[in-house]
Amino acid sequence: MRVDFWYEFASTYSYPAAMRCAALATAAGVTLRWRPFLLGPIFAEQGWRNSPFNLFPAKGRYMWRDLERICAARGLPFVRPDPFPQNSLLAARLALAVPEALRPDFSRAVFAAEFGQGRPIAEKPVLAEILQKLGLYAPDYFDLALGEARAKLKSENAEAVRLGLFGAPTFVTEDNELFWGDDRLEQALAWAQQRG
Amino acid sequence: MRVDFWYEFASTYSYPAAMRCAALATAAGVTLRWRPFLLGPIFAEQGWRNSPFNLFPAKGRYMWRDLERICAARGLPFVRPDPFPQNSLLAARLALAVPEALRPDFSRAVFAAEFGQGRPIAEKPVLAEILQKLGLYAPDYFDLALGEARAKLKSENAEAVRLGLFGAPTFVTEDNELFWGDDRLEQALAWAQQRG
Repeated sequence: MRVDFWYEFASTYSYPAAMRCAALATAAGVTLRWRPFLLGPIFAEQGWRNSPFNLFPAKGRYMWRDLERICAARGLPFVRPDPFPQNSLLAARLALAVPEALRPDFSRAVFAAEFGQGRPIAEKPVLAEILQKLGLYAPDYFDLALGEARAKLKSENAEAVRLGLFGAPTFVTEDNELFWGDDRLEQALAWAQQRG
Repeated sequence: MRVDFWYEFASTYSYPAAMRCAALATAAGVTLRWRPFLLGPIFAEQGWRNSPFNLFPAKGRYMWRDLERICAARGLPFVRPDPFPQNSLLAARLALAVPEALRPDFSRAVFAAEFGQGRPIAEKPVLAEILQKLGLYAPDYFDLALGEARAKLKSENAEAVRLGLFGAPTFVTEDNELFWGDDRLEQALAWAQQRG
């Protein structure tokens, strides 16, 4: 039983999902694969050059309040990043560059910096600090981010489009059922369990 | 403790919400007010002349599959209406025209006809049959739909915009907290209970 966790570092609801999904998957006996991708190119395909939360203000106001409620209920720190959305390209490439076993820790640290502390995750020093805390030599990973991880992110995004992803987070089961949103994590895990 | 249930007859997720919200609210000791409104004018304000599920095909494909899963899990019949979305103007006016005590029954019957049987809810005979089954003399309510209910729907829609509604269903508590989506019903009721 495996579920793929597709997330985007600029995505607000990916933050609370990233902070809880590993624990819930373990409790459910489900293997989780962490798969960062970019929503920007997918949004651009449908004519959006910005986050829908900026393009549609009523939806944006709701989302910020909702995220604040979710974080408060779960005891997660929350600082609204400025600007929003953050440029997540380098963080996504690095997430694919680091050893797979460290990808969850790296990703949680990026989300915590961005949405828990309001730090600018597009900036190299912020990402370098996260890499170093994980015991990784940052310059090596910035090199990888420009090489094979860059190509890998492109192919991952092509796979996201093929699967029909249109938002993040999305949980995808082995039989290609999509569950969109942090609030669907439990259903995705239950689906995987029932068919495991 | 009161929660307003804002719903749109053309809205897919309003169907499962309408079929369960009264029972859950009663169990929670929360009073539910049924408030039909129209999403069309709200979507049009942001440049959408069609349902976002038609405008954005990946999102639409997901929604239909998700709705099918939800209905299956809850034992609700489901037939995809054609065309989608249905024109919900007359149904919404009628929902405001009928006696308030019958509004939930009328509304559930409309949703059941539309999404449970795939019947065309823009057509008068379909709506007349629903009115008659509730013991209402249909011609009287078609008259009201062109008069005071028409004005009432306009003022309800203005209120929806004032509250910041951008989708349906949305549950709104007395302290104006918004909970968007059928899957947020439980949270809306819990919020109302905690502050009742």
